[in-house]
Amino acid sequence: MGKQLNLKEMVGIKAASYVTDGMTVGLGTGSTAYYMIEELGRRVKEENLKIVGVPTSYASKKQAEALNIPVKTIDQVNYVDLTIDGADEISHDFHGIKGGGAALLFEKVVATYSKEIIWIVDESKMVDKLGRFPLPVEVIPYGQDQLFRLFQEKNYHPSFRMESEEVLKQTDSGNSIIDLQLDCIDDPIALANELDSLVGVVEHGLFLSMVDRVIIGKESGPEVLEVTR
Amino acid sequence: MGKQLNLKEMVGIKAASYVTDGMTVGLGTGSTAYYMIEELGRRVKEENLKIVGVPTSYASKKQAEALNIPVKTIDQVNYVDLTIDGADEISHDFHGIKGGGAALLFEKVVATYSKEIIWIVDESKMVDKLGRFPLPVEVIPYGQDQLFRLFQEKNYHPSFRMESEEVLKQTDSGNSIIDLQLDCIDDPIALANELDSLVGVVEHGLFLSMVDRVIIGKESGPEVLEVTR
Repeated sequence: MGKQLNLKEMVGIKAASYVTDGMTVGLGTGSTAYYMIEELGRRVKEENLKIVGVPTSYASKKQAEALNIPVKTIDQVNYVDLTIDGADEISHDFHGIKGGGAALLFEKVVATYSKEIIWIVDESKMVDKLGRFPLPVEVIPYGQDQLFRLFQEKNYHPSFRMESEEVLKQTDSGNSIIDLQLDCIDDPIALANELDSLVGVVEHGLFLSMVDRVIIGKESGPEVLEVTR
Repeated sequence: MGKQLNLKEMVGIKAASYVTDGMTVGLGTGSTAYYMIEELGRRVKEENLKIVGVPTSYASKKQAEALNIPVKTIDQVNYVDLTIDGADEISHDFHGIKGGGAALLFEKVVATYSKEIIWIVDESKMVDKLGRFPLPVEVIPYGQDQLFRLFQEKNYHPSFRMESEEVLKQTDSGNSIIDLQLDCIDDPIALANELDSLVGVVEHGLFLSMVDRVIIGKESGPEVLEVTR
């Protein structure tokens, strides 16, 4: 576990090195993003780095504020120069699944308005095809049981994300999460279009053709993959 | 105005005549749907009609309950047999715009799980192509200003639906409404797909290939159009 944390810290610091003076930076969420934000805070303090952070979650916002990184919402900036965030799964052709932390909606909004995106992960997240990781779908509570039945009929193996044994997880937007256990997503673009078209689906965890650079934690040091499309 | 109400009442009563014993009925919202629900209430009382209502709004729910029509949510029924609702615009090929009353999300959820749909309108709602009526788009508040700018760039002439001069209208799901003044929608299917794919868009007011029967209020009596696809 100590070694694992060490790799994450190295990846977080490496990712932060892509941030330069004057940037508006999308601040991801999760254990690796934590170290990235810590490093940005250090550079703000010690190197007088001037940046504006756009957090993708309440946790990232609190962390950034505690480090004296000025933060704004996505609606208070023109665009984001660079977003650094984790991912739950990345395929060989650099599509991704995000949303294990239930923050997929805000993460996707920030990503949508970002000029450049870096994903920071450990090796276990790199897969051939997506789908072993459950695909989170954020849904409007009204009609969610109908959607659930539809997903069952489609053999998408849905399960509601739970807060506790009896209480549904509620997102920051007051919606529910249905996780789809698909095991192998052969055509993520078709699936994304299908989910987008379903009434009651707010957003889903497929982040397609979005990432520009992936930094992977390895024993030998962070590996940087540049994505060309 | 008295005559206008009379036409709406005639249409509402005509629409209610399609409801039969044992049905689960989607209860629309608006001035014509009001008369339809009143008539169903009368039949429940006087003819012992047995139905379950699935209201699309708080107003319809209160009205139905006051008339002793049992109501359920869409998640408490298997499906809806027949939904009767208004529409803001219906094209010659029977696509529609709904959402002038900001209830488009729940209306669309109920419509999605309905076996049959009747729209009840006055003649002014029948148009060649959709778009003169502003197209409502329900959006997540986080990122809504970015979406607004995107709509501006696309020349969709967006405006936020307001509750008052300074306060944005909030939907029952806590979202905002951006109305698009498109004037003429040449390809509603392409537009629906585009809107569906936009991050932050929860739902839009295009109801395509949904309606099975349109009842139009006319001086000479309600005109019934059967839609064949």
